[in-house]
Amino acid sequence: MEFKVRITISLKEGMLDPEARAIRHALQNLGFQLSELKSARVFIVSLEAASASEAERQAVQMCERLLANPVIHRFTVEVLG
Amino acid sequence: MEFKVRITISLKEGMLDPEARAIRHALQNLGFQLSELKSARVFIVSLEAASASEAERQAVQMCERLLANPVIHRFTVEVLG
Repeated sequence: MEFKVRITISLKEGMLDPEARAIRHALQNLGFQLSELKSARVFIVSLEAASASEAERQAVQMCERLLANPVIHRFTVEVLG
Repeated sequence: MEFKVRITISLKEGMLDPEARAIRHALQNLGFQLSELKSARVFIVSLEAASASEAERQAVQMCERLLANPVIHRFTVEVLG
């Protein structure tokens, strides 16, 4: 069966995110009143798996083996169906 | 009041995404059976607004004025509360 999985990868709490900071400053300079901006990458993956839990397991492996850097990133996996 | 808004920016349908393609190939080379991989950027913004609809309006303006390129991107805005 084919499953769609949403993988969200973001920086761990406390990690500096200079890109997000630059974007926040740029928005503030445009007049927007924002106090915080966090960024994340999202991947929507269509994969073959026997079950939803198997699809989730595979997505976690994708993060651990390629997509995320465990030193700086945390990730969440959500099976969309 | 402070609102949290999730802004998701992705490429329009039909736009080439060489980075996503490279990641898909790399995952396939690792043995994962995935047929598709789409990528998106997510920004979680904390902003001052009088109401949820005002917060949403501001987030849409952020996309139109800075975050998204209307030629290649589409975006969605979701007020988280």
